[in-house]
Amino acid sequence: MEVIPVFVDAEITACDNLGEIIARSADICDGDVVVVAQKAASKREGRIVRLSDVKPSMLAEGIASQYGKDPRLVELILSESSDIVRMRDGIIIVRTHSGLVCANAGIDESNVRRGHATLLPVDPDASARKLQSEICASSSKRVCVILSDTFGRPLRMGQTDCAIGVAGLLPLTSYAGRRDTFGRALRVTEIATADEIAAAAELVMQKTARCPAAIVRGCDPSHVMRAGAGRDGDDAERSGAALLQRPSADDLFS
Amino acid sequence: MEVIPVFVDAEITACDNLGEIIARSADICDGDVVVVAQKAASKREGRIVRLSDVKPSMLAEGIASQYGKDPRLVELILSESSDIVRMRDGIIIVRTHSGLVCANAGIDESNVRRGHATLLPVDPDASARKLQSEICASSSKRVCVILSDTFGRPLRMGQTDCAIGVAGLLPLTSYAGRRDTFGRALRVTEIATADEIAAAAELVMQKTARCPAAIVRGCDPSHVMRAGAGRDGDDAERSGAALLQRPSADDLFS
Repeated sequence: MEVIPVFVDAEITACDNLGEIIARSADICDGDVVVVAQKAASKREGRIVRLSDVKPSMLAEGIASQYGKDPRLVELILSESSDIVRMRDGIIIVRTHSGLVCANAGIDESNVRRGHATLLPVDPDASARKLQSEICASSSKRVCVILSDTFGRPLRMGQTDCAIGVAGLLPLTSYAGRRDTFGRALRVTEIATADEIAAAAELVMQKTARCPAAIVRGCDPSHVMRAGAGRDGDDAERSGAALLQRPSADDLFS
Repeated sequence: MEVIPVFVDAEITACDNLGEIIARSADICDGDVVVVAQKAASKREGRIVRLSDVKPSMLAEGIASQYGKDPRLVELILSESSDIVRMRDGIIIVRTHSGLVCANAGIDESNVRRGHATLLPVDPDASARKLQSEICASSSKRVCVILSDTFGRPLRMGQTDCAIGVAGLLPLTSYAGRRDTFGRALRVTEIATADEIAAAAELVMQKTARCPAAIVRGCDPSHVMRAGAGRDGDDAERSGAALLQRPSADDLFS
């Protein structure tokens, strides 16, 4: 398996065909998984807010004063979220409207002009499907796309890249029914393949706007079994990164 | 970056020099990160228990009857753990004596003879250092070693591979003080590089005893900056996977 960074010289803007830019900057092959940084997708979707345009609510002002934060940023976090999951020591962990549990609703002031912040794509799975169709059209190759972002996690230190959007790939690989070398059912039932691919891509992408994507080539074909499935994202319901979101009723730590 | 599976034909036993077996089965280069499956390390360390030798305590019998589990397995889980972190719906999540938070104390009946179970290595960082020194000695190359295991996680569905032992590698890559393309400090402060490398390796290793290791080649040199540091694991305190364990006081979800 190879993991290859894709470097792009130009700054991504709202009107760009991001998939075409990536396809032009890389040597794409059939079956490649193209991992795209959330920041690049947010920029091309115009999910950039000028902080001076934000009017904080009373609640945002209150939280901001308690934690010494910018009330305009807190307002953005609240407006992007359906629930506050944890709030302590200045850390605000929310569930976004698209169902992701992450700090600050994924809102970020890095790699964007000063005085601005980027929001996550409204529907990251739809963003991934759009990128897939653009990359396939530009390269004439059949690829899968993962939209990745960098999240902290409970229990373990450090952040890792996760798949927030997936197109053309089963995000979970089931081992149910598979047998070990001794004929016994495996303890491991389901691998979060899309998260592992996003993590692998992070190792070659730098936290810079100049490397908005990486190609992961030569994954086990069972991981990318849906690589050939429709360029227009058919069966999207069954293949999206939303399948990686653990329902809180099923979560021993929520 | 390349990720290369290492296939080994023989079953690993307690007396094996596992590092030498891996080095003989692969074409090792200077700077490689060798990811070794926990199961292989446990076998070579004789961390295999015959279930018929286990005498369950009253507590183990009680938990087992409540959840319909084998009381001997529950006894092993309890004896390998310092705390029960969560226990619900038949899932027992503990903190092991080495500080890992995982289901069933990492005890596993797959890929081992029937009627037996494997326990995690007593000191996974020490296991990684021993493997590093064996692989370096056998191959005459300087490598880092990650001992990996497959864990579930809060918030997200599916399991991913994590680094439970690390030798010669900084498990966390700090971005503190680094600037983005616009000169602004980065939001991402610390990447769990060793977990991401373990995840990348999982994508090429199969859940079979025949692939106990994978080589990750061509990581960003800053990730493996300690690759050249002593073959005998000097400064082990500062480089072990124990740094990836989030203290519960610092954990919003514990």
